[in-house]
Amino acid sequence: MTSERSNAPGTRPFVGVVGGVGPLATAYFLNHVVRLTVAERDQDHVDMVVLNHATIPDRTEFVLGRSEQDPGPVLARDARRLEEFGADFLVMPCNTAHYFTQQVLDAISVPFVSIIATTVDAVRDRVPGLRAVGLLATSGTSSSGVYQDAFDAYGVATLVPDEADQAVVTSIIYDQVKAGRPADLEALRGVVERLVERGAQAVILGCTELSVVAVDHGLLDEPLFVDSTDQLARATIRRAGGTVRGEAPGA
Amino acid sequence: MTSERSNAPGTRPFVGVVGGVGPLATAYFLNHVVRLTVAERDQDHVDMVVLNHATIPDRTEFVLGRSEQDPGPVLARDARRLEEFGADFLVMPCNTAHYFTQQVLDAISVPFVSIIATTVDAVRDRVPGLRAVGLLATSGTSSSGVYQDAFDAYGVATLVPDEADQAVVTSIIYDQVKAGRPADLEALRGVVERLVERGAQAVILGCTELSVVAVDHGLLDEPLFVDSTDQLARATIRRAGGTVRGEAPGA
Repeated sequence: MTSERSNAPGTRPFVGVVGGVGPLATAYFLNHVVRLTVAERDQDHVDMVVLNHATIPDRTEFVLGRSEQDPGPVLARDARRLEEFGADFLVMPCNTAHYFTQQVLDAISVPFVSIIATTVDAVRDRVPGLRAVGLLATSGTSSSGVYQDAFDAYGVATLVPDEADQAVVTSIIYDQVKAGRPADLEALRGVVERLVERGAQAVILGCTELSVVAVDHGLLDEPLFVDSTDQLARATIRRAGGTVRGEAPGA
Repeated sequence: MTSERSNAPGTRPFVGVVGGVGPLATAYFLNHVVRLTVAERDQDHVDMVVLNHATIPDRTEFVLGRSEQDPGPVLARDARRLEEFGADFLVMPCNTAHYFTQQVLDAISVPFVSIIATTVDAVRDRVPGLRAVGLLATSGTSSSGVYQDAFDAYGVATLVPDEADQAVVTSIIYDQVKAGRPADLEALRGVVERLVERGAQAVILGCTELSVVAVDHGLLDEPLFVDSTDQLARATIRRAGGTVRGEAPGA
């Protein structure tokens, strides 16, 4: 072997991605991990296995009690299968699916890097003295309280859109991105403005479908936005032993 | 269960992707499959498991005899692992890796959809009375003869760039796309012009890194180009029971 970065198993942590929720968001996550990794050649990238399990029952429908098809056991089984495949740690590029985190944790013995915890840490790093954050997410994520509970622990208020604005966000996620149609960026910006007027010092793109919109429209360059897919991609590269573009090696 | 498209195992063929060669090309392949699938909701997409095995030894280096690190057994093992994971058929979004197709076939019992055969069929469909086709690919693909052998069977000549032009193509693949840098599109167009002057009636983008360039620069809209990633994505969706945008269902 001429290189430490050979294909020998166990050389660097192997990433398992519990994905497909949704499929385009999973593809963007993979693309984002590759783009963000400092690499001169293929072998500098992190090894990953991505389960793009598109047919998992809808997460928000179940969280809101509108469907009896429980995605929790499916996500838990997928996570266990990825561990059995050889993954050294797991990520799940879907915020709403984190409602089922405990079921996933109960099914695996390898570490799980949470998109919620990673994003909360990033917001707190971004805004010193953080008091209030806006959350753009599915109704499932908002009503499940995964972000609110995490921010409550730091005395930070989580502001969610009012009912009319949440309907706009839901439509962008379900009727536009998941359906392969262009996103109504101006409508999204209106929702964001009203969160900022109410005191939001940062706005979380807390749905991986909104991360698709963020990449397509350059929102990642605006410091107001903290994108959950972007943060999970960075955490994934670091934990897998890669270097994130713009960061010091081993950061 | 309220839908035929439930998450029940075996409902629709489950796709295994022998990937990571290279990583960005694999991400583009996944993205392209999702974008090309007719879908109103997540559950309309095809289920896939993508092994993004970036640290596989370089294919071209081995094919050209410059490296003793043989990627063949690694690709064969990856394919077998994906079959064991539950994949109903396999694809490998890397043209050069198809030099090792027989090793992959020997390791698996599920069907394997070849990017070479799929692309050759697409070129023959595109150009009635085809006599000569240009090939843009790695030196490994060109010298391995995978495309030449396939076209020879139909009496079609495969034109490859001369040495100086191949160096341009190699640099775009290795020094630009694989290294995360912008591609020199004008240089690529010069190579294409000279293939057309020599009689090429179509030009194959026979390297999945060139497919990245094709998507980024809109080359898929130009009828001269037949893109191997695009063709493999279409074949994958059809075989997995999905519908390709712009095609009749079940085509």
